[in-house]
Amino acid sequence: MVTKVASVTKEVLIGDGLTTVLIGERINPSGRKKLSEALMIGDLEVVRKEALAQVEAGADILDVNVGVTGIDEAAMISQALETVMETVDVPLCIDSNKPKVIEAALKVYKGKPLINSVSGEERSFKEILPLVKESGAAVIGLTADDRGIPDNADQRLRIAGQIAEQAELAGIPREDLIIDCLAMTVGADGKAGLVTIDAIQKIKTELGVNMTLGASNISFGLPNRELLNGAFLSIVIASGINCPIVDAAKVLPLARACDLVLGRDKYAMRYTTAYRQFSSHH
Amino acid sequence: MVTKVASVTKEVLIGDGLTTVLIGERINPSGRKKLSEALMIGDLEVVRKEALAQVEAGADILDVNVGVTGIDEAAMISQALETVMETVDVPLCIDSNKPKVIEAALKVYKGKPLINSVSGEERSFKEILPLVKESGAAVIGLTADDRGIPDNADQRLRIAGQIAEQAELAGIPREDLIIDCLAMTVGADGKAGLVTIDAIQKIKTELGVNMTLGASNISFGLPNRELLNGAFLSIVIASGINCPIVDAAKVLPLARACDLVLGRDKYAMRYTTAYRQFSSHH
Repeated sequence: MVTKVASVTKEVLIGDGLTTVLIGERINPSGRKKLSEALMIGDLEVVRKEALAQVEAGADILDVNVGVTGIDEAAMISQALETVMETVDVPLCIDSNKPKVIEAALKVYKGKPLINSVSGEERSFKEILPLVKESGAAVIGLTADDRGIPDNADQRLRIAGQIAEQAELAGIPREDLIIDCLAMTVGADGKAGLVTIDAIQKIKTELGVNMTLGASNISFGLPNRELLNGAFLSIVIASGINCPIVDAAKVLPLARACDLVLGRDKYAMRYTTAYRQFSSHH
Repeated sequence: MVTKVASVTKEVLIGDGLTTVLIGERINPSGRKKLSEALMIGDLEVVRKEALAQVEAGADILDVNVGVTGIDEAAMISQALETVMETVDVPLCIDSNKPKVIEAALKVYKGKPLINSVSGEERSFKEILPLVKESGAAVIGLTADDRGIPDNADQRLRIAGQIAEQAELAGIPREDLIIDCLAMTVGADGKAGLVTIDAIQKIKTELGVNMTLGASNISFGLPNRELLNGAFLSIVIASGINCPIVDAAKVLPLARACDLVLGRDKYAMRYTTAYRQFSSHH
C-alpha cells in the first residue's frame, strides 16, 4: 500500500519497504517561544527559515502548525502555507484538528497535502473526514478518542480500526489513511514504549496501513534523550513506521542507517551521502 | 524459555522479556595484535585486564577465545579460564569449535558454561553435542553448514531447525540451545541486514529459542560504524536477540535504552544507572 502526497512539483511516496520519509516537525509553536511570539505578531520570517533549514537537513515533508492561543489561526495557516510554498518545494502536512483552519489551509494549498489529523471521536469523524474526501488529501488518524489515549495496544488497534472504517464510509481510499498510534514517555510509565511498539505491529498486521509517529516524547524527563530516541526510532521504523514526525537535522543519519540495515539502500549510497552531509555541518 | 548459565557464585538468566544479557567479546585474538602476541608468549596479563574492564563496563558473561595459530590451544584455554575465573565472578563462554579445546576447557571450568559453538555440519554435531550433553553446558548453534552461511533467511532457519533436532536427539534441553544466525556487512550486500533480521524473526517464531548475535560485522567498511551498529542492535534486540556478543564498554547505554523502550526496566533504574556510569567514564 503506497500513500502519495504532493506539492506542485514534487511527489513523495510512503510505503512498506520504501525508504523512510521524514516529516519535519519544527514549524509548530508548541514549546517554542520564539516561533509562538513571531506568529502572535504575524512575522513569518521564522517559519521561512525553519522551512529552509529542515528541507536542507533532509525533511521530505513539512508539518505546518500555527496553533497559538489568541490569533486568527485560519488566517495564519494560509499565510504560513503561502510562505512555506514560496520557500521550499516539498509536500506539506496541515497540522490542525479544527475544521475551519483545515478549510482555510486547503484553499491555499497547491498539490495533495497530508491533513494532521482526525481522531477516534465521533465529532472528529463528522467534521474532518468530509474535508479530506472533498479535497482528495491524505489524512493522519490518531488512536485516541473521547476517553483519551488508551494505555494498551488492543484499544489503540480498536480505534485505528474505527478510523479506517469511517474513512472507508466517507469514500477515502485506505492508502490515504496514515495511522499515528502515539508514544508517551517511558519516564512516567515503564510500559509506554512496549505498548506503542505492540500497537504498531498489531495495526500494521490487521489494517496494512502506512504509519507515522512523533517518537521523541518517549524520552521526556530522562537523561541522554538522543540515545533513547535513537533506540526507539530504530525499533519503530523496523516495526512499520514509514514516515515519522521528527527533527530531520537530528535524525537523518539514523533514519538512513535504519533503511540500510533494513535492505532499503542497496549500495549504501543514501547512508554515506547523509554521513558526509551531516559530518560537514557538525 | 529461560537459559541459565552460571559461575560458582553467579547465575545469569537469558530469556524473552528479560533484560538483555551482554556477552563480552574482547577476549578474542582475532584482529587484536596485542592479545595475539601475549597469548603466543603465554602472558595472561592482557586477558586479566580485559576480563576486569569488561565486567566493570557491564558485561554479564565473558566469551573466552584463545585461537592463535601455533600455540597449544587446549593448554592455553585452561590457563585463560583459570585466570578469568580468579579475576571476575561472571559465567563464561568457551569459544572454540575444536573438541579437544572444549574438553580441556570443561575440565577446569566451574559452573555451567556456554559453549560457542556447534554448527550445522555433520561433523560438528558428532563432535560437539556429546560434550555439551555430558557437561550439562548450554551451547550456541551457528546457522552455517558445509556450504557456508546461507544468503537467505529460510536456509538459516532450516539449519537452526537441524541443530535443534540434533541437540534434542543428543538429550540437550531446548532451553540450553542458543542460536546465532550471523550478521554480514551491508557494505558488501545491501540485503545482509534484512536477511539477518528476517532469520531472527523466523527462528524465534518457529523454534522459540533464545538467540545471540555478533552485531558489529554489519558495519564493516562503512563510515560512522557506531551509529549503524546502534540502529542494527536496537532492531535485533527488539526482534528477539537476548544475549548479543558485544563490546560492553561501547553498547551498555544503548542496550539499557532498548530494554527501557521494550518495557523491561519499570522505573528506568537500569537505564539511568548506566547513563551515570557511562558519563563518569567519558
